[in-house]
Amino acid sequence: MKYIVLEDEVSYDGHQISSLWAYENTGSLDDTIIAFRGPCGVSIEHMIDLEDRVSDESIESPDMIHFICEHFDSTDLKLVYARQRLFVLIVSEILSRYGLVTERNGDDLFFNDRKLSVSIASVSPVSQKFHFGMNIVHEHYASLKMAGIKEDDIYSLMDEICDRYCMEFKDIERDLRKSRPLDVI
Amino acid sequence: MKYIVLEDEVSYDGHQISSLWAYENTGSLDDTIIAFRGPCGVSIEHMIDLEDRVSDESIESPDMIHFICEHFDSTDLKLVYARQRLFVLIVSEILSRYGLVTERNGDDLFFNDRKLSVSIASVSPVSQKFHFGMNIVHEHYASLKMAGIKEDDIYSLMDEICDRYCMEFKDIERDLRKSRPLDVI
Amino acid sequence: MKYIVLEDEVSYDGHQISSLWAYENTGSLDDTIIAFRGPCGVSIEHMIDLEDRVSDESIESPDMIHFICEHFDSTDLKLVYARQRLFVLIVSEILSRYGLVTERNGDDLFFNDRKLSVSIASVSPVSQKFHFGMNIVHEHYASLKMAGIKEDDIYSLMDEICDRYCMEFKDIERDLRKSRPLDVI
Amino acid sequence: MKYIVLEDEVSYDGHQISSLWAYENTGSLDDTIIAFRGPCGVSIEHMIDLEDRVSDESIESPDMIHFICEHFDSTDLKLVYARQRLFVLIVSEILSRYGLVTERNGDDLFFNDRKLSVSIASVSPVSQKFHFGMNIVHEHYASLKMAGIKEDDIYSLMDEICDRYCMEFKDIERDLRKSRPLDVI
Amino acid sequence: MKYIVLEDEVSYDGHQISSLWAYENTGSLDDTIIAFRGPCGVSIEHMIDLEDRVSDESIESPDMIHFICEHFDSTDLKLVYARQRLFVLIVSEILSRYGLVTERNGDDLFFNDRKLSVSIASVSPVSQKFHFGMNIVHEHYASLKMAGIKEDDIYSLMDEICDRYCMEFKDIERDLRKSRPLDVI
Amino acid sequence: MKYIVLEDEVSYDGHQISSLWAYENTGSLDDTIIAFRGPCGVSIEHMIDLEDRVSDESIESPDMIHFICEHFDSTDLKLVYARQRLFVLIVSEILSRYGLVTERNGDDLFFNDRKLSVSIASVSPVSQKFHFGMNIVHEHYASLKMAGIKEDDIYSLMDEICDRYCMEFKDIERDLRKSRPLDVI
Repeated sequence: MKYIVLEDEVSYDGHQISSLWAYENTGSLDDTIIAFRGPCGVSIEHMIDLEDRVSDESIESPDMIHFICEHFDSTDLKLVYARQRLFVLIVSEILSRYGLVTERNGDDLFFNDRKLSVSIASVSPVSQKFHFGMNIVHEHYASLKMAGIKEDDIYSLMDEICDRYCMEFKDIERDLRKSRPLDVI
Repeated sequence: MKYIVLEDEVSYDGHQISSLWAYENTGSLDDTIIAFRGPCGVSIEHMIDLEDRVSDESIESPDMIHFICEHFDSTDLKLVYARQRLFVLIVSEILSRYGLVTERNGDDLFFNDRKLSVSIASVSPVSQKFHFGMNIVHEHYASLKMAGIKEDDIYSLMDEICDRYCMEFKDIERDLRKSRPLDVI
Repeated sequence: MKYIVLEDEVSYDGHQISSLWAYENTGSLDDTIIAFRGPCGVSIEHMIDLEDRVSDESIESPDMIHFICEHFDSTDLKLVYARQRLFVLIVSEILSRYGLVTERNGDDLFFNDRKLSVSIASVSPVSQKFHFGMNIVHEHYASLKMAGIKEDDIYSLMDEICDRYCMEFKDIERDLRKSRPLDVI
Repeated sequence: MKYIVLEDEVSYDGHQISSLWAYENTGSLDDTIIAFRGPCGVSIEHMIDLEDRVSDESIESPDMIHFICEHFDSTDLKLVYARQRLFVLIVSEILSRYGLVTERNGDDLFFNDRKLSVSIASVSPVSQKFHFGMNIVHEHYASLKMAGIKEDDIYSLMDEICDRYCMEFKDIERDLRKSRPLDVI
Repeated sequence: MKYIVLEDEVSYDGHQISSLWAYENTGSLDDTIIAFRGPCGVSIEHMIDLEDRVSDESIESPDMIHFICEHFDSTDLKLVYARQRLFVLIVSEILSRYGLVTERNGDDLFFNDRKLSVSIASVSPVSQKFHFGMNIVHEHYASLKMAGIKEDDIYSLMDEICDRYCMEFKDIERDLRKSRPLDVI
Repeated sequence: MKYIVLEDEVSYDGHQISSLWAYENTGSLDDTIIAFRGPCGVSIEHMIDLEDRVSDESIESPDMIHFICEHFDSTDLKLVYARQRLFVLIVSEILSRYGLVTERNGDDLFFNDRKLSVSIASVSPVSQKFHFGMNIVHEHYASLKMAGIKEDDIYSLMDEICDRYCMEFKDIERDLRKSRPLDVI
């Protein structure tokens, strides 16, 4: 498991959630979390959440930080959703170190009762992935800037979040290698 | 998924982590999280973490709140560890509502740099389980009482944590039922 | 697990076997079995059974009862086929209560040596589904009407079949939560 | 998948449900269903159903036909329970050819409102198995003899049931090898 | 598991790696390995290895022997790649009986430091497959002819390789049916 | 995945095949292959292969090299047996570099029609493991010494075999991270 923070802006249009996008763009042959900054505008053919697609709900933002995580060790939907929730909570932990206290509901973070983030998770036959994006600025929704995060902190924030998730993943992999099976009543 | 908060004290000796303990003790035929209060003293034959067993490390506390969660939908170690971490973060979220800010490292919570909790997760051939315990009082480690949680709040805290984990589980189960598969590059 | 009997007729053209069709049409976020009445005409691009597609065999009927069942707990082909067979046998049990004795061969029901039903099962990366249809009337094949089922009983029959399958599913889920693992010689 | 009908009587004490019993006793290196005749008396340490063990319920019969089926293709509890239910329904189908109409409730067959059978299913880390037994005679419960099955038909009945289950298994294995994946909405 | 050696030439264009190709072309309802002879020219839309697609690398040969193996017992990428490597090593074993000593690197065979073979493995939601091809003649790469394999031996070589892989598969299936689970420290 | 070659002799009595033995003895929290030298005498309670146990066949050797490999990424019997076979073929490859040409049958290596090796594979609820041992000297069976391997080469042989298996594992993990899913006919 490794992470890559892209220096250049990338416009998130939803095709980046496709399996093997990390390999195509970075050549990574590992489980990888990639972070980048850029606007968000997900076209309907790339919407994974059928609820958004059915309601024709646009997912748009002028400036966001994006995290795209891909694991190849399983294609279990239950596992990728547990990992997505874990990631959201890790984001919340890191934000609180920057003085930003959020509320979480499922895979969404809120600040002052306004939605700060978007997220989705799913699987293909070859990998599992989740996307998590947070507004840096936004007209209607909550954003990192309105919540007090400074421009200078954006990339260090991205870095810390990625680093923490990778450490978490490795910590779990270590823990499960010293656990004896459960007895049974 | 349901939860049960036992009114009577139970002394946690490690055999409660065995598969089917919830059924034997409550008759529950569901995925279940059971919370109870009581001392903790895990004998070596019930230690799941081989690190503790190898180092002959005692796991003892005079008064703890315990959570024991069992899922029958998978025996994947990766999944139960992701769920355990998710649970620990949910505990941290709920504690912060009571004004108790903790630090987390893996599956441990800390208060003022002292360890507040113990936890383990594993599988048998028929189910996956995790245990999470927090000191209510303790001579050496951190405890809920020293961190300002009042006696009157112990059971409501147990109830809130269980309730939130069950809601999280159901929320994930709903989310994965509206997710389209990923495209592939 | 729940079931929904649609009051309005639906023409089964095969696209209803697609994953997430139940969510799109009913908003259900559960494992669901949906029953409806309507004609059947499966176009070749929606044929799941490659045998039908290769032989360019039309699957047509002017009036059928249809059952479409979707589970999200596994994408194992072996499991969805075992569940499909179980469903066919449950249909046979319920029909016998209506005085209709059928013969079964694999996933087909026969009455007086004529085929009464069509069925298919498969998986996508996110769910497993099966379809089962029975002729209410038909020129060449067996039908419920020719076998003595009255018009007034069609919807109660649909309801009973769905109800029994849901009960079976829940019964299995309960049984597996009180089973100890096997010993080994 | 093959089947073996043992000519000699075997007393079923529950240890036969252990994984690899078929190999130890017949040398079979296939998925196998073994049928035999003999009394039934399951000691408490071999009880798989914790409900029976908790209630200290004896499972005894002076003369039964037993079926023990083992599959090595999966250790999924959901799958072995679906297969067990399928088996029970196949037994019911075959019995009806002998003029014996039973009622089924979960994994139990009833005749004249009295229980005719016992059954259990579970997994070990290496295989999945189920046991199904039917009384040939019994003082309190229903039995094949009271239901009109003749002594001469016992072994042909055992043979037919095994044969039908093996054919069903092979039929499923063939069906899943010509099924295209589901589309997604 | 069975194998089929096609007598007629088939031009390998990559669509043969699709799931259910064996059924469509031979009617096989088993796990199957199919061998045939023919040229190779994989168009970009059928390239499974994204590395080839990204680098727009043509995979072309005027005359090859091809093996296409499909298993329906699992859709685990780890398993199909382990089986692919096993297959490559079996090919190497058989070639050495014909006096042809190769070097192996991953899923590639080399003769005199020149690449002799191409191979890929992957899964769909319903099956796992691998393709392995070896040049019979080639202008730039190594080939069976340059390595001393005679025209008369081509089909017997294909037959032996298929036969050995099928025997290996069956041998594994037998071995796993007499293995007790591991103890745990 | 890493490997450890133990300098000290270890007497292989079969308990080393237990899950978590590598952690207990080396503290490794990775998938690990451990090699050591020592006599072999497997007591009946540690025999994994029921065939050996049933026939009360002793597995004894005065001096062997042993490899014990443990993976925590899956508890699938099919996968661990495919990996075991792959390992045996890798051993055969490495031996041929030392001028020792062996014949392979399943998981056994032969030299001059005499058996050179023993091997077993299996799973527990938490990991999968295989053991492979080769006689350095032996009265009745084949041995490395009789086949021309020199004393000085024993440890470098152990090292090369471990290294190659680890490289193979990593190579597979890389390959599966650039494979697109299969199309379907």
